[in-house]
Amino acid sequence: MPLIVTGSIGIDSIESPNGNADNVLGGSAIYFAAAASFFGPVRLVAAVGEDFPPAFRKSFEHFKVDMQGLETRKGSKTFRWRGKYHQDMNHRDTLEVQLNVLAEALPPVPEKYKDSEYIFLANTHPAGQLALLDQFPKRKLAIADTMDLWIETERPTLMKLLKKVDGLVLNNDEAEQLTGESNLILAAEKITEMGPKFVVVKKGEHGALIEHDGAKVVLPAFPATKVVDPTGAGDSFAGGMMGCLAASGDFSLAGLRKAMAYGTVVASFNIESFSLDRLKQLSRADIDNRLKTYREMLAIG
Amino acid sequence: MPLIVTGSIGIDSIESPNGNADNVLGGSAIYFAAAASFFGPVRLVAAVGEDFPPAFRKSFEHFKVDMQGLETRKGSKTFRWRGKYHQDMNHRDTLEVQLNVLAEALPPVPEKYKDSEYIFLANTHPAGQLALLDQFPKRKLAIADTMDLWIETERPTLMKLLKKVDGLVLNNDEAEQLTGESNLILAAEKITEMGPKFVVVKKGEHGALIEHDGAKVVLPAFPATKVVDPTGAGDSFAGGMMGCLAASGDFSLAGLRKAMAYGTVVASFNIESFSLDRLKQLSRADIDNRLKTYREMLAIG
Repeated sequence: MPLIVTGSIGIDSIESPNGNADNVLGGSAIYFAAAASFFGPVRLVAAVGEDFPPAFRKSFEHFKVDMQGLETRKGSKTFRWRGKYHQDMNHRDTLEVQLNVLAEALPPVPEKYKDSEYIFLANTHPAGQLALLDQFPKRKLAIADTMDLWIETERPTLMKLLKKVDGLVLNNDEAEQLTGESNLILAAEKITEMGPKFVVVKKGEHGALIEHDGAKVVLPAFPATKVVDPTGAGDSFAGGMMGCLAASGDFSLAGLRKAMAYGTVVASFNIESFSLDRLKQLSRADIDNRLKTYREMLAIG
Repeated sequence: MPLIVTGSIGIDSIESPNGNADNVLGGSAIYFAAAASFFGPVRLVAAVGEDFPPAFRKSFEHFKVDMQGLETRKGSKTFRWRGKYHQDMNHRDTLEVQLNVLAEALPPVPEKYKDSEYIFLANTHPAGQLALLDQFPKRKLAIADTMDLWIETERPTLMKLLKKVDGLVLNNDEAEQLTGESNLILAAEKITEMGPKFVVVKKGEHGALIEHDGAKVVLPAFPATKVVDPTGAGDSFAGGMMGCLAASGDFSLAGLRKAMAYGTVVASFNIESFSLDRLKQLSRADIDNRLKTYREMLAIG
């Protein structure tokens, strides 16, 4: 069940109505990896710059993430992002982006990672995602994330990627942008016609939906009263989901639904604090307890 | 279990990306009554003008709605509404409103209706809702709907109403407006502090949530691929929910959840056609079959 994630690691600065956090650990790969680590071992391929704070490496150790694929690139700087959430936490402004090492060549995949079976390609240039995918010949399940920029500028390459992955994860705006369809259920149908066996549309506070072989499942978000920082919600959702799938090996609709439920629950913890602060305090038992509450909430007599 | 609804009956004209419908039967009370009729008998208190088309009365007969409380007011005209939906069916523009009889005195409640136990006060001036409520001394469950206009202009009267009803149903924008809270879970909590035992927040394509005695349940909408006309979705949701509650008498959280699920399912049929066209083709078995699908969709293993 080796699970690998390739994606970004960054230094984030966040302003939110509930406080600020300056220069904290962030990035798609780290949220994903931390969330997935509750279900089994996680390998990471990512690059940071020489400025990457040593203290942040402790986080990887806490989650027991295999760091052999973490490249510290000489002469480069770490990706940085500064964002601001408003009272309505569903929307945020990006105040500053420094791509730095993310604009350079992808980090190499260590030879010992090439037997990975579960591959999560966090958002990056689709050509890079394709190149990474080819390095995992034993893959059983490959899921990609993407973003508005690539849908807009790299559609032909993205289309090639969609023919090679098993699943795509994206948010509601991206699903609409990719298909021109504002009904998300129909948008998800159209995306599966582009290649992947299933597509998961993340709807933020409104939950997520999956389209799989003609079947549709919509799950609500866990009702959260404490939302401090939504950063990484989508990535921790994907990490919880894929961690569950790698542990179960069950890609049936029921297996995907349960994995989505786990992703939903892990994401609901993640948003309770800045950066990985809440996930660091979390146990697998906490996750299972909240999953039980969530399951009961949705049990219609 | 006598269930009564007071509200509007109108003549609607609708433009939607999927076609137009001119001068069709609409209004909160008629959508509610039709939806509730699948679960048991429904009484209606509403007023129309002399221009109300006789053919529309056939609809009431189809759903076996008790029409004794339907006043045809001489010298008055029926409420009319004209609206337009855009490609994104979550938003609509009101192109024209003629309040007509809705701007006049409320219709009287027939003496034989005064033993009604289940009371739904569809959206109207909260002073009118209070006056109506007082006419049902045997009430077991009273639920009110409201709208942005009354929250803006009649807040003190609305607050009085909230202390007297068991439940409030409103949409997400209204919940935020009423509480100043953009997190809907927290907004719902705040509304129960204003008086009602429970509040149901309707989120359109994203489903609905209930806050009841500190517990929260969020349910997604049924995944709809055929959305022709969302008009009346919220009212048919409320009708299905309250019809179920009147039939079961179960106001526990489990009972409310099941009722919300029935409301969700009935609303999902309603939006498949203009006016009451789809509900007229519907059987209780159709509803129960879709409820089964919905229950299975939400069953997390």
